Amino acid sequence: MVQRLRAGDRRAAARLITWVEDGMDDHNTAMKLIYPHTGHAMILGVTGSSGVGKSTLVDHLIGGFRQQGKTVGVVVVDPSSPFSGGAFLGDRLRIQKHAQDEGVFIRSLASRGYLGGLSRATYDVIRIMEAMGKEIVIVETLGAGQDEIDIIHVAYTCLLVITPGMGDDIQAMKAGIMEIADIIVLNKADLDGANSCLRYLQSVLPGGCAGENKWAPRVIQTVSVASKPEDIRGIDELMAGIAEHQEHLRVSSAIEQVRSKRVEYELGLIFQDELQRTVFKGLKGTGKRRKYIKGVLESKTDPYTVVEEVMSTYIKREGRGKK
Amino acid sequence: MVQRLRAGDRRAAARLITWVEDGMDDHNTAMKLIYPHTGHAMILGVTGSSGVGKSTLVDHLIGGFRQQGKTVGVVVVDPSSPFSGGAFLGDRLRIQKHAQDEGVFIRSLASRGYLGGLSRATYDVIRIMEAMGKEIVIVETLGAGQDEIDIIHVAYTCLLVITPGMGDDIQAMKAGIMEIADIIVLNKADLDGANSCLRYLQSVLPGGCAGENKWAPRVIQTVSVASKPEDIRGIDELMAGIAEHQEHLRVSSAIEQVRSKRVEYELGLIFQDELQRTVFKGLKGTGKRRKYIKGVLESKTDPYTVVEEVMSTYIKREGRGKK
Repeated sequence: MVQRLRAGDRRAAARLITWVEDGMDDHNTAMKLIYPHTGHAMILGVTGSSGVGKSTLVDHLIGGFRQQGKTVGVVVVDPSSPFSGGAFLGDRLRIQKHAQDEGVFIRSLASRGYLGGLSRATYDVIRIMEAMGKEIVIVETLGAGQDEIDIIHVAYTCLLVITPGMGDDIQAMKAGIMEIADIIVLNKADLDGANSCLRYLQSVLPGGCAGENKWAPRVIQTVSVASKPEDIRGIDELMAGIAEHQEHLRVSSAIEQVRSKRVEYELGLIFQDELQRTVFKGLKGTGKRRKYIKGVLESKTDPYTVVEEVMSTYIKREGRGKK
Repeated sequence: MVQRLRAGDRRAAARLITWVEDGMDDHNTAMKLIYPHTGHAMILGVTGSSGVGKSTLVDHLIGGFRQQGKTVGVVVVDPSSPFSGGAFLGDRLRIQKHAQDEGVFIRSLASRGYLGGLSRATYDVIRIMEAMGKEIVIVETLGAGQDEIDIIHVAYTCLLVITPGMGDDIQAMKAGIMEIADIIVLNKADLDGANSCLRYLQSVLPGGCAGENKWAPRVIQTVSVASKPEDIRGIDELMAGIAEHQEHLRVSSAIEQVRSKRVEYELGLIFQDELQRTVFKGLKGTGKRRKYIKGVLESKTDPYTVVEEVMSTYIKREGRGKK
């Protein structure tokens, strides 16, 4: 299976991703085999509220990277889908559009309830796409909710997509921009208010302190949807901006920090997942779980005391062990 | 402190909530003392996308419950605030409005980065409000993201707020509605499309299968904002709907299941939090974390193997122990 995956086989990839989604016990075994073949892709994060045009922008970016001869994987993360579902539909259209292109693989993680959490599923799917040989992996998220903000931290280059008319929001998200975005994409730049929005952003961004070792977040204006194709704007500039940020990461060696941070996040997620699996498995079937809940409901104990009890049963407090 | 809290002291509550937010080590000790004084409030969940009018609806509900002489706590959960901040501002206005009313306590959990996770902070804050003696605790969430969907599961009665013009979304969220909402609030019912939206919802909801032991989700139309106060509509009907659902929970004994589910969620969250604290604390300072990350980056190992190693150090696989 891993060999077929490495040859770029979509069905092998789809099968593995299903394992990840279902949180199968042996999916760790598969991920262990896959892991050595990963780590070479450029991971591009694209985030922003719904309706800012993320999907169409990503579509243009796929086109741009394909023109450069690069293969592309896309992971669309939309944990809100039980309430919206919009991303899923848009995604199907995109999948159809690129169905004939072996160089593009799109997968959406739209529903909740992954056993190991949505973040972990996303991380694993990114690794699977890397193992398939995809040179670019785009992670598209809604930018709402802690899970998604965490996911975006693995991106080497992060785009925050906004539109004019988000004026009120921009002031408030100032801190968020600084923290997360490498490039701010002002999409729908043909709308009223684009200029004042641009001026505001530029006044807020710390342009002055850029240097060889420090990246200054920049604003790029785009129009990702237009009735006439010639009115689509800014895509080349955006591609150039991404390339520049990549070059910055390489030259400044910041890429090492980004990689290290990514592994740290992954370790944390896998860890949390495995801890829960082990301990919950231990409790299952013994009727203890039921007993604990009953005890709390009858005010014989409280959850904090229960957890202490369980912990003392399962955890070696001092970390004594074979290490 | 706990005594002052039980007497309804806001400053004691604010102090305890800060502990929860900061994830202080001894906040468990405080929660243990508080816990016996909780479990008596009615927890009302209010969820829906941004812009549907949740805040103004909740404001009317606060008014309604206060007229009945009931005290009210409100927890506003908005993990997206690094990107929006809107809820926070709206919240401040509300806090001002009710500042003179000792019977209302509003707190918003707007930023990310709680040590034990946003869900756990929310659960603890609900318990604190119960210990303060609040008879109704309203939990208002954006309804996007897994954290928030999980939070809403503790509500005894759950309102899903939508507006006309969400037509496309409604089809997609069908499954979500069935799963979560006890009452669907069609807000802004004075807008075009309200009638067709209502007809659609009624055709989709399983009205037929209601019975003494089964609650049939219903739709209530409201207008929560209007230029003339007399144009505000549906609030009394909504209050009546909530009361009816409460009565249903009581009569059908479903309340026991809801309470049990709540404790189960709490146990899971506290557990996860404590597990991570214990194990991460063990790793801190030993340089092992650094070493593990380095090993993965240099392809000497992979995260899955690292986690197995750490687990074998910290976890008693068979749950052997004093229990």
